[in-house]
Amino acid sequence: MKTRIAIIGYGHIGRAVEQAIAGAADMELTGIFHHNDPLDNVEADVAALCVPSREVPSYAERLLEKGISTVDSFDIHTRIPELRAKLMPVATKNKAVSVISAGWDPGTDSMVRAILLAMAPEGLTYTNFGPGRSMGHTVAVRAIKGVKDALSMTIPLGTGLHRRMVYVELEPGTDFATVENAILTDAYFRNDETHVIQVPSVKALDNVGHGVNMLRYGVSGATHNQRFEFNMSIDNPALTGQVLVATARAATRLIQEQKFGVFTMIEIPPIYLLNGDTEELIRTLV
Amino acid sequence: MKTRIAIIGYGHIGRAVEQAIAGAADMELTGIFHHNDPLDNVEADVAALCVPSREVPSYAERLLEKGISTVDSFDIHTRIPELRAKLMPVATKNKAVSVISAGWDPGTDSMVRAILLAMAPEGLTYTNFGPGRSMGHTVAVRAIKGVKDALSMTIPLGTGLHRRMVYVELEPGTDFATVENAILTDAYFRNDETHVIQVPSVKALDNVGHGVNMLRYGVSGATHNQRFEFNMSIDNPALTGQVLVATARAATRLIQEQKFGVFTMIEIPPIYLLNGDTEELIRTLV
Repeated sequence: MKTRIAIIGYGHIGRAVEQAIAGAADMELTGIFHHNDPLDNVEADVAALCVPSREVPSYAERLLEKGISTVDSFDIHTRIPELRAKLMPVATKNKAVSVISAGWDPGTDSMVRAILLAMAPEGLTYTNFGPGRSMGHTVAVRAIKGVKDALSMTIPLGTGLHRRMVYVELEPGTDFATVENAILTDAYFRNDETHVIQVPSVKALDNVGHGVNMLRYGVSGATHNQRFEFNMSIDNPALTGQVLVATARAATRLIQEQKFGVFTMIEIPPIYLLNGDTEELIRTLV
Repeated sequence: MKTRIAIIGYGHIGRAVEQAIAGAADMELTGIFHHNDPLDNVEADVAALCVPSREVPSYAERLLEKGISTVDSFDIHTRIPELRAKLMPVATKNKAVSVISAGWDPGTDSMVRAILLAMAPEGLTYTNFGPGRSMGHTVAVRAIKGVKDALSMTIPLGTGLHRRMVYVELEPGTDFATVENAILTDAYFRNDETHVIQVPSVKALDNVGHGVNMLRYGVSGATHNQRFEFNMSIDNPALTGQVLVATARAATRLIQEQKFGVFTMIEIPPIYLLNGDTEELIRTLV
């Protein structure tokens, strides 16, 4: 029986989820709901929340209360424990599953970080992002008075440090130096090396590509100098959409096992993300 | 309460398991058993099997029959489904857990392969091993008449192809050309580019370093050109021992949940491999 999945929010991520469902033989799309559509008509085993991160808590809560399981790619790292605590009683009470922060970071990168820590419990992990657009930083710049459009690129400098390249398109009559100063003193930017560049069109620069370079230098047992590296060069919404669909599949497995509640990806067996017969997957992957 | 763990087999891997236990606050070593010691006195929650792969099935069966859970790093890829099928009824009947093929490949690499497949369900994964010593190939060469000692190095050529560099130390009076021909026509070598080199001392070349370069080129949803890469440069027994200890921890969790039976690492949530409070691990890793 196919997993019936609804898409809530139909921007970049929602469209990518639609494409991933179309490629998944075990998934059936039951509806697409635009941001702010009423949720009364959602008919699904799992709702893929493709709304902005800040709205995930409220959407998840309302759907879980209807007994509909949810998956989301909530990406405000510091607020994940709070989201988990908020949704746990709602999911449990309504015999539903909520897999939170199920994109690529947080998400699959988190799984890789957990595996690296198991392989070398002492040591350092550096997660280097980019080159790619940071949504959070971009939104912060767009909120500045006189900014018509903006793009904040994250450039990896290694050892978890990042340069911010901020491209701004200004409203006529706006003073560039004032905007530049507002950016450089903003909490999002003031701790990073930041460069602000005025451009005639931000749209001409747009690109949903992104990447990661994760490094761990650590110790296994009593042996030092164990080195691990994980790299990706990816289309950001396409990967996020694909991971959400894989996670909806895992949610279905957890529901079948009556393991209700809130899960992050590090709490999920990797095989639950995959379509196919267990023995065949073990034969080909292990 | 600490997990009580016994080491069965005390070669490179057994010693590495001992070191990993010493570094794990939640583990307690209850005994070290040499290869061929009787198993009557094993007192443990989990036995780490550090015997040669070919002997894992028999050791695992005997321990599981006593209700002692097992972890092993059985590495004959083609025979993993058979091992799983053999141990499943024994583990289930005796309310025990057996985690099989829990080294780095098969093992943690298998988890990474599963996650890569979830991220890009269509595409190709290449696993490139080395440079490092292949135990299976080395053993095959040592069995040839006139070979006093041997070392078969695996050199990655990319796209899953490997060169075999075979270093042989011969008994006096042995004809090199005869040995070389026996190696080149052996089933272990005849499909790979193989070079045989005579050396005065194999011991002088020995090194337990190894590595992996795993690549996936694939499609997420409808988007092509998604690229993923995983690299390691590691001490082989140290990593294998560390993974076995992490897996013994996971076995303890599965026993607590009364999920008895046989598991491969792709069937285990990554967080089960880690020591620490769930909320704290989620906060730092996700």
